[in-house]
Amino acid sequence: MIAIDLNSDLGESYGAWAMGDDTAMLAVVSSANVACGFHAGDSLGIWKTVKAAAEKGVSIGAHVSYPDRVGFGRRDMDVTHDELIADVIYQIGALKGIATAAGVTVGYVKPHGALYNRIAHDPKQGQAVIDGIKAVDPSLVLMGLAGAPILELARKSGLQVVAEAFADRAYTADGQLVSRRDAGAVLHDTQLIAQRMLQLANKGTLEAIDGSTIRIDAQSICVHGDSPGAVVIAQEIRRAFKADGITVRSFLSA
Amino acid sequence: MIAIDLNSDLGESYGAWAMGDDTAMLAVVSSANVACGFHAGDSLGIWKTVKAAAEKGVSIGAHVSYPDRVGFGRRDMDVTHDELIADVIYQIGALKGIATAAGVTVGYVKPHGALYNRIAHDPKQGQAVIDGIKAVDPSLVLMGLAGAPILELARKSGLQVVAEAFADRAYTADGQLVSRRDAGAVLHDTQLIAQRMLQLANKGTLEAIDGSTIRIDAQSICVHGDSPGAVVIAQEIRRAFKADGITVRSFLSA
Amino acid sequence: MIAIDLNSDLGESYGAWAMGDDTAMLAVVSSANVACGFHAGDSLGIWKTVKAAAEKGVSIGAHVSYPDRVGFGRRDMDVTHDELIADVIYQIGALKGIATAAGVTVGYVKPHGALYNRIAHDPKQGQAVIDGIKAVDPSLVLMGLAGAPILELARKSGLQVVAEAFADRAYTADGQLVSRRDAGAVLHDTQLIAQRMLQLANKGTLEAIDGSTIRIDAQSICVHGDSPGAVVIAQEIRRAFKADGITVRSFLSA
Amino acid sequence: MIAIDLNSDLGESYGAWAMGDDTAMLAVVSSANVACGFHAGDSLGIWKTVKAAAEKGVSIGAHVSYPDRVGFGRRDMDVTHDELIADVIYQIGALKGIATAAGVTVGYVKPHGALYNRIAHDPKQGQAVIDGIKAVDPSLVLMGLAGAPILELARKSGLQVVAEAFADRAYTADGQLVSRRDAGAVLHDTQLIAQRMLQLANKGTLEAIDGSTIRIDAQSICVHGDSPGAVVIAQEIRRAFKADGITVRSFLSA
Repeated sequence: MIAIDLNSDLGESYGAWAMGDDTAMLAVVSSANVACGFHAGDSLGIWKTVKAAAEKGVSIGAHVSYPDRVGFGRRDMDVTHDELIADVIYQIGALKGIATAAGVTVGYVKPHGALYNRIAHDPKQGQAVIDGIKAVDPSLVLMGLAGAPILELARKSGLQVVAEAFADRAYTADGQLVSRRDAGAVLHDTQLIAQRMLQLANKGTLEAIDGSTIRIDAQSICVHGDSPGAVVIAQEIRRAFKADGITVRSFLSA
Repeated sequence: MIAIDLNSDLGESYGAWAMGDDTAMLAVVSSANVACGFHAGDSLGIWKTVKAAAEKGVSIGAHVSYPDRVGFGRRDMDVTHDELIADVIYQIGALKGIATAAGVTVGYVKPHGALYNRIAHDPKQGQAVIDGIKAVDPSLVLMGLAGAPILELARKSGLQVVAEAFADRAYTADGQLVSRRDAGAVLHDTQLIAQRMLQLANKGTLEAIDGSTIRIDAQSICVHGDSPGAVVIAQEIRRAFKADGITVRSFLSA
Repeated sequence: MIAIDLNSDLGESYGAWAMGDDTAMLAVVSSANVACGFHAGDSLGIWKTVKAAAEKGVSIGAHVSYPDRVGFGRRDMDVTHDELIADVIYQIGALKGIATAAGVTVGYVKPHGALYNRIAHDPKQGQAVIDGIKAVDPSLVLMGLAGAPILELARKSGLQVVAEAFADRAYTADGQLVSRRDAGAVLHDTQLIAQRMLQLANKGTLEAIDGSTIRIDAQSICVHGDSPGAVVIAQEIRRAFKADGITVRSFLSA
Repeated sequence: MIAIDLNSDLGESYGAWAMGDDTAMLAVVSSANVACGFHAGDSLGIWKTVKAAAEKGVSIGAHVSYPDRVGFGRRDMDVTHDELIADVIYQIGALKGIATAAGVTVGYVKPHGALYNRIAHDPKQGQAVIDGIKAVDPSLVLMGLAGAPILELARKSGLQVVAEAFADRAYTADGQLVSRRDAGAVLHDTQLIAQRMLQLANKGTLEAIDGSTIRIDAQSICVHGDSPGAVVIAQEIRRAFKADGITVRSFLSA
């Protein structure tokens, strides 16, 4: 029986500002990347999201970020090695505190936004993230981009890793994400996306933007997107998986 | 043999801004109230302070605050019950994460500034702080103002408490702190302060501002002050205690 | 011919977080209370709102607040006199800079949220707001709650003032807003609200919650509300005014 | 008679945290680069600094920064063109408001820290800064690194510019600052620094780190430094200038 994880970014409201539909997403995904307060999320909002995730049995991951709330963590920052380690520890600790209050645990870490993209290929900042995770809890799993060097770096450093693919993104022939600046980078056709994810779950392959078939070794699928249709896409993938006998299950419960 | 705890506010630098002399204070005190990022303290600075406290064997407390960095947590805020609970959990969690990275544990919680003063007498915000502590770690001790209702409230709620006196503050005949707005509220005479603290440690009494003798039941003495002389005062108290055979020891190691 | 001003809170998005429908509101109101970055609004978002207001010929007011973004400026804060003066100057200055870049001017100041409520009756913080306005631009008009002491205080201090009524709020027999904690404080019936505002514009009276008729001397009507229906209510008031021959016009263009 | 400007970074305290000795520096310099709240400076502190500068007749410049308080604006950030324009406008506007309250005007703009270094050579972010300045007040002078492309870019865009040299920094043979990572980048010998600045003021030349003589076309000298000796260095330069008959005068009063 095939099983795969679906993950999404949650807890991204801030104070009076709402973002996303956490309730709807929590009914679909098996892993919740929960904001830790640096790019999004206030204490109370994070707590509500973690409680809701706990009720649904959804795994909790720390969605750690650069300290850039007004930029939503989407702007590359030249933080120092020590600053980044400490910021990772602080954010994971804060989320662990809230998770404890909700009776659950934090199981993994997924860097957010610009930090995610940066460490995929930058071993210096990548090592800082790894060192921060290991300092606070070496049993935490690092979630990263399938095929990116960060995964091997983390493995060598003694961390467990999980690779993810992006449901609504196109891939190049060599397995990279097509840059958002290029045409066709983001997919919008719900049916097409669901079909692609079925292929990914069943065969471990995807059709690249040039029509070639590429191998993507992913244990989790990110169903988050900035578009309003993110929930609908996630629901359709879940429906397609169910129809095909594929189980949606957190990689932590494997 | 008499033993008492000395505590001080530490980790209150922020980014490029230094505050206090943590190294000097850590050589004197037995308990460090470490800022958690809401009124002061950035991730890296907090980590450095916790590591330094760990090396000195000084106990770590979470110095939780209202979210008011520019006001240094000194301005009363009408936060809601749920906001306050969540903010307490978040801050304790963050410090626990950093403590774990430093190989130590957080042993107690001391609310900071305006929050400290508010909960001393406000059972509503006081209960929120208590509930937050219990939600994240019910074994944490709450440090509060000797004689204030918050201590009894916390005890009834199942928390261990420790009462503290302020080394450089005058007291009224009924055991309250003289308001900072009144003349004579803050003491500056190092010798006098040390003598008063000897009396407190040995007899559990202090001379009030009207000359009467009052009973102060305190297991810890706060040697922090906003004045530059705070370190000198702390050192003199420590010296006087040593000369008198009084042990300075964290209430957690009792 | 009767003319009255309609005002609404705008520019309250923040970074990636949207709030309200500024475009729709700017088609209805004659005055825009624009967030200045302390409770809401980032530089770019504020600029976009001011440009949109400029295109519609809508007057610009500075919606100054306590420095409390996570609490959206809704929590009472004990800021000092000097802090408040300086914060008011800073926020007005920032908005003036953006208004200049958009080719328009800031015409008035409306304190936001908890600060608005506080100064309505607290002459100390009220005077600080007044002093801040006068220090940066004494020609700015202060918008305040109809009937509240702040208006008289500001007038005596040499500021021009404009009194506002709240479209969706119930009033007590003595002309105060019914507290949000009490039943019936917020009105939701669009038709009823429009009828009440017609009466206000035509006769300067409203029906109080006890059925009595009270006099409300207001030159502006606030059509903002936290409910999603705020735009609909504003549109209906505008429609009713048009049908009744009442002109919606900024008090600044009188 | 030779005249030159001395400038320093001021107003960099934040809330309870002090930084630098503004009073001492204002007795030495002719231009004050005043923090605008993004990397440092709270409303009240900025106001105090501007009032003190006004009393001394020192010119006021807006020390605009990336929005990175915890990093003190020293970390490179990939802000977008529009974000940067708006942030520049907002900060200049805020400082203009405070300057108006102090009875003076803002005369120039000096980007801070990482933004300063970035725009020296990055025409994209440089143009955003220029566009922001022009949008809010095209009469403002842009202060930039002597010899850097940003000055020519600004001139072509219609801004007046002033070039500055750094008193305590070594220069390469091609007129660049020696990187802080390299040995000898920062000078500490007060007498040597004063002699170098005399040569700069009198001949427009400096000795480069390789011993060659280079031409530096600067109308202002930055006497700010992160070292505690910054004030002493500034005082010595001022003294040496006086002894040599060189007038210290703001480039704005030329």
